[in-house]
Amino acid sequence: MLRRMNQTIRMTTEPDFQAWMGATQARVEVALARFLPLPEIAPAKLHQAMRYAVLDGGKRVRPLLCFAAGALTGAPVERVERAACAVEMIHAYSLVHDDMPCMDDDTLRRGKPTVHVEFDEATALLVGDALQSLAFQLLAEPGLLGDPERQLRMLHALALASGSRGMAGGQAIDLAATGNTLSVPELEFMHIHKTGALIRAAVQLGTECGAPLPAEAHAGLDRYAKLIGLAFQVVDDVLDAEASTATLGKTAGKDQQQNKPTYVSALGIARARALAEEMRAEAHAALAGLGTQTKRLAELADFVVLRKF
Amino acid sequence: MLRRMNQTIRMTTEPDFQAWMGATQARVEVALARFLPLPEIAPAKLHQAMRYAVLDGGKRVRPLLCFAAGALTGAPVERVERAACAVEMIHAYSLVHDDMPCMDDDTLRRGKPTVHVEFDEATALLVGDALQSLAFQLLAEPGLLGDPERQLRMLHALALASGSRGMAGGQAIDLAATGNTLSVPELEFMHIHKTGALIRAAVQLGTECGAPLPAEAHAGLDRYAKLIGLAFQVVDDVLDAEASTATLGKTAGKDQQQNKPTYVSALGIARARALAEEMRAEAHAALAGLGTQTKRLAELADFVVLRKF
Repeated sequence: MLRRMNQTIRMTTEPDFQAWMGATQARVEVALARFLPLPEIAPAKLHQAMRYAVLDGGKRVRPLLCFAAGALTGAPVERVERAACAVEMIHAYSLVHDDMPCMDDDTLRRGKPTVHVEFDEATALLVGDALQSLAFQLLAEPGLLGDPERQLRMLHALALASGSRGMAGGQAIDLAATGNTLSVPELEFMHIHKTGALIRAAVQLGTECGAPLPAEAHAGLDRYAKLIGLAFQVVDDVLDAEASTATLGKTAGKDQQQNKPTYVSALGIARARALAEEMRAEAHAALAGLGTQTKRLAELADFVVLRKF
Repeated sequence: MLRRMNQTIRMTTEPDFQAWMGATQARVEVALARFLPLPEIAPAKLHQAMRYAVLDGGKRVRPLLCFAAGALTGAPVERVERAACAVEMIHAYSLVHDDMPCMDDDTLRRGKPTVHVEFDEATALLVGDALQSLAFQLLAEPGLLGDPERQLRMLHALALASGSRGMAGGQAIDLAATGNTLSVPELEFMHIHKTGALIRAAVQLGTECGAPLPAEAHAGLDRYAKLIGLAFQVVDDVLDAEASTATLGKTAGKDQQQNKPTYVSALGIARARALAEEMRAEAHAALAGLGTQTKRLAELADFVVLRKF
């Protein structure tokens, strides 16, 4: 998966970004493997399934955003690593639960059978539950920041982003919307919750790992994160309509098949692409005035919009 | 439910305990209703289902333990209330997920249809997910304790108790055990995770809300909590075998029907009852030397073992 990604992106972004992204993804992979319970520890099947769900897959967009935001505030890598892994575990748990038969009923994820297919439904349910706990456990590790009040703020932000007013709520809105036609503002409302909340949390947590920022910088960063979150979804919808299952590593064409409202169904492919481009430009603009350390964040905006999978 | 409980217990415990328990349960109910998102806030169906899952039901054993432990350390009621609600939300989420068709497939809980029956499976999945997030959100509230380091310890303890090495892990062990014969030590291992971890967290969190205790006091309290957790399960198994569905407010006789290993299948009813009595005596002994404020904890040990539902 990682190899294919790097090949594709090499054509559209700087080689230096490629190297940074590859190194960061590798670092995150090692950290995730270390934070996850060992596969031989009881209950072994659950721990094996947790590792299966999290390791060896995905673009790690949220961890990359966490590291890019941490670079802006000079955050120590060990801290950002933990925050990035906490966010990624929330994301991984949501994928496991979303793929279950009572939700999207999907059998392929990151090029592998989904957790409930490879193991069983009950195990998939528990994998998601336990990954969510593990995310908060990682972030509550005593002494992570040397500033327990900031650490509490991070925990609070991650919990809000994950819950009924964030990601889980977005999933509920998505369920209710299936089969309906949504306007672009309604789609935006859904995705601000479903994908946007956790992407904003990734940027916020990465930032919080370093030196304090003035309030207006936080506002700019949050605007960037909001745009990236939406652009990510617009591009996802375009790719679902255009790309093949082999390229995506997950079942393509599911949106239309499940009659889900998407940016493509609302706008058509060409206008959806144009919207993503617009958001990319706005995300770059939101970074203006945030100093010289925004390079990785800007490159990630390009990556999110220009990716082919 | 509360009315029936008070009538039953009045025969076996002090009237003063009845009053305390009733007042604490009422206080917890009000607090839970306040902490849960309002039913009219979007996504409304999810928020209604979260409230349905949590409110108006249950003995609130974990909150009661939290308050009883808080009394030992002179903890302010507003703090304990939040900790108690966080623990209860983790418990409530676990019931919603355990009742789902891919787990225990149960249709009745606390005298009402289970969440996936009253709403649907996808909503039940999201209700559990969102309740878990909400538990951590409550406990991460900035300024809860005036001591952020202790607050982080509480968050860490709750996350550990909920995850794959605690409650979710116990559920996985339970799944793997169904259809097998377990020895009493194996049963104990399962229940120390499945029910015990969260009950110990309830006592620990309640304690942490007040004045610091010496290390040996923590050890005694933890021994008490471990015994209560196991006794709770032994009595649950006895009640499942003996009582009626109407009395329990959940389907009776499920253990035998699902061929689950229980203390009753391992020991028979009479020896299981004797074991619970032994644990009650040991729990009382574990409280010796912890001062004069252990009254509620001692009474709760009696309540857990002598309850009829």
